[in-house]
Amino acid sequence: MAKRRRLFRNIGECLTLAGAAVKEARRATEADLGIVRKAAILEEAGRIVWVGPEARLPKGLGAAGAREVDLEGHVVMPALVECHTHLVFAGHRADEFELRNRGATYQEIAAKGGGILATVKPTRKASLEELSRSAQARADVFVRQGVATIESKSGYALTTAGEMKMLAAAGRIRGPRVVRTYLGPHAIPPEAESAGAYLERVISTDLPRVKAEGAAHRVDIFVEEGYFPEPLARRYLEAARRLGFELAVHADQLTRSGGARLAVEFGARSAEHLIRIDDDDVRALAGSETTSVLLPAADLYLRCPYPPARALLDAGARVAIATDFNPGSSPTQSVSLVGVLSRLEMKMTLPETIVAYTLGGAYALGLGGELGALTAGRSCDLAVLGSGWPDLFYSVGEMPIVQVWRGGARLNRRSSAN
Amino acid sequence: MAKRRRLFRNIGECLTLAGAAVKEARRATEADLGIVRKAAILEEAGRIVWVGPEARLPKGLGAAGAREVDLEGHVVMPALVECHTHLVFAGHRADEFELRNRGATYQEIAAKGGGILATVKPTRKASLEELSRSAQARADVFVRQGVATIESKSGYALTTAGEMKMLAAAGRIRGPRVVRTYLGPHAIPPEAESAGAYLERVISTDLPRVKAEGAAHRVDIFVEEGYFPEPLARRYLEAARRLGFELAVHADQLTRSGGARLAVEFGARSAEHLIRIDDDDVRALAGSETTSVLLPAADLYLRCPYPPARALLDAGARVAIATDFNPGSSPTQSVSLVGVLSRLEMKMTLPETIVAYTLGGAYALGLGGELGALTAGRSCDLAVLGSGWPDLFYSVGEMPIVQVWRGGARLNRRSSAN
Repeated sequence: MAKRRRLFRNIGECLTLAGAAVKEARRATEADLGIVRKAAILEEAGRIVWVGPEARLPKGLGAAGAREVDLEGHVVMPALVECHTHLVFAGHRADEFELRNRGATYQEIAAKGGGILATVKPTRKASLEELSRSAQARADVFVRQGVATIESKSGYALTTAGEMKMLAAAGRIRGPRVVRTYLGPHAIPPEAESAGAYLERVISTDLPRVKAEGAAHRVDIFVEEGYFPEPLARRYLEAARRLGFELAVHADQLTRSGGARLAVEFGARSAEHLIRIDDDDVRALAGSETTSVLLPAADLYLRCPYPPARALLDAGARVAIATDFNPGSSPTQSVSLVGVLSRLEMKMTLPETIVAYTLGGAYALGLGGELGALTAGRSCDLAVLGSGWPDLFYSVGEMPIVQVWRGGARLNRRSSAN
Repeated sequence: MAKRRRLFRNIGECLTLAGAAVKEARRATEADLGIVRKAAILEEAGRIVWVGPEARLPKGLGAAGAREVDLEGHVVMPALVECHTHLVFAGHRADEFELRNRGATYQEIAAKGGGILATVKPTRKASLEELSRSAQARADVFVRQGVATIESKSGYALTTAGEMKMLAAAGRIRGPRVVRTYLGPHAIPPEAESAGAYLERVISTDLPRVKAEGAAHRVDIFVEEGYFPEPLARRYLEAARRLGFELAVHADQLTRSGGARLAVEFGARSAEHLIRIDDDDVRALAGSETTSVLLPAADLYLRCPYPPARALLDAGARVAIATDFNPGSSPTQSVSLVGVLSRLEMKMTLPETIVAYTLGGAYALGLGGELGALTAGRSCDLAVLGSGWPDLFYSVGEMPIVQVWRGGARLNRRSSAN
């Protein structure tokens, strides 16, 4: 049987990100968006076979037999990659927002049994079915905004079975590609004797089980005083590396915890948050393969400073941005908010913002060669825009998305704003 | 013929804002939300006849013959009042965002022919039909977020005919109540000899024409050095008052221009922006009937400080919040963003935020006795929520709105997020 082929044609402008792909998402300028006018994309079995000006589509590629998709002059770009979320959870934490807003700190709220633990209790109680249903609805909200790949962390159950349930719920999501991350060391469970004792159980029980069942191929840890300080994090990362996991690190969010340096030392795919890093950390990240994942919506909600995005970008670090969607510190799924804050508060240019939300996110997930740009060999993950690309990340609440495709298959059937 | 009656019943919780209404939207606490559980609202010819616990619905009010609307246990609150927008315009200004973001100031962008003038050219060229079509689409975006009343300013044509065209476009909007505001003195038209010369024309030609044609019953002015400084503003406000217009003032946004004091002196309905006001101005506003309209999304976009909301509220000023939606300094229609910023950045409590976006906005428009609360005699303008009211203004991008009613008539037919 012949492989399925699609020819996406009549594309007004195609942001291929070809230049950014060559530079592996570092130091991107407008030229690196690789804009092709009057473009076409030929896809086969989910992958891009050819992209270029439609008038120069080569004979002999089999385009003649492909199913045509007329994109009516719209702008096309790579679908967004939302590389840091806590998509699976139960319970509400809107009340905590009001508390925090009246002056309680993150640590004070945690000490009162709020914070992450306020989500742990309902998440432990929730069934797999309940968790996957709510996660699916949230995933759909991302898709309507142009996202085709979503990372989903565990870390709200803090028991072996509960963490497996969270990963299973993420695995049931239909539509977008979901990259699952085990984050058992997200908080210390209330019944644990100590962070160290919990981490021993995580290392001896959870990690091997996650590995054996293939529930996730990457793991994360919240490196922070009061949670998992650097020496414990080091033990965890060593164990995870031994088992062959890819690594991510919640790094230097509340204090300069050493997370970014650990991430670089261990060759982690990503170091996330990075609010408290210093100039040496910036240089270390820039000289590494670790992607710096910046989460400005969380910084807005927590009223933290924003991370030094300009310093990272100028030093040549690879930067990604994401919502950090979770019910406590970043209760928003608005990708337009993330983009607008990246521009306004972190002084990223629009091309840098676009690259960070596509190819940067792909690299953070270890998929830099697979996603995030529209070049031959990559997955055909497209966002079709209803306006020009300079309108992106300009209006909070508005993503001009008319179609989203993943691997050559249509994900959304209606437009949306968020 | 009997008047049309509707009985809205099976309301899980009804936020009547009765206490806030008694206090005329000052010093509101949670108690002032006037929450009634298991409530019903009886409406006749668009107005609320009775509101209270459904079990105590009095006989003899005619509820028996009313058409029933079962609200299925949902929470009901007054529809939002979006009291400061520039809804009618043509053209795009996304490019300017990137410029400003790279360091150009508001004044520098204006000096380059950007800023307000970048919208003037396409708005002058646009037909009434084009303007009203795009304004209708924008109004619909507000309605989907729970808004039933929208203020719409002119001020992007700066010619008599052009300003009349803008007001006419606003007048054509169907669905929400649109309150039109003449804002000829929004910028100095490029062809004018001086601000003073333009203002003379405004006073001698525009104001009488707007009055004669009933195109607006309120007028506004941008009081600011480089635009319309205090002495000119005084001349304008005197002329407008003589003609019987209600007054609004863009006050103390970029510098302490004296706008707030002028607003109080002239008994303006509203003083808007208020970023640069001092303690004396706060006291003056608190002691007046002028509503302080705060526009935090514009402050986010312009990276201004936020206005002293806490000082105003604590001093007893009446506060309203709104998007300031416009294509330049606040290109967002996200009411959730406005609410979240009001809480996070201006330290408003959730009850204060709810009152400011409903009854406060109504007072800013001179409709404090008509709208913004659910008490007998007021217009039956309802927002029906899909979740509890503590979830309001918590997640940027999400307004849990399932129905919107204006004067007892349904406005939206689908839910939405923004």
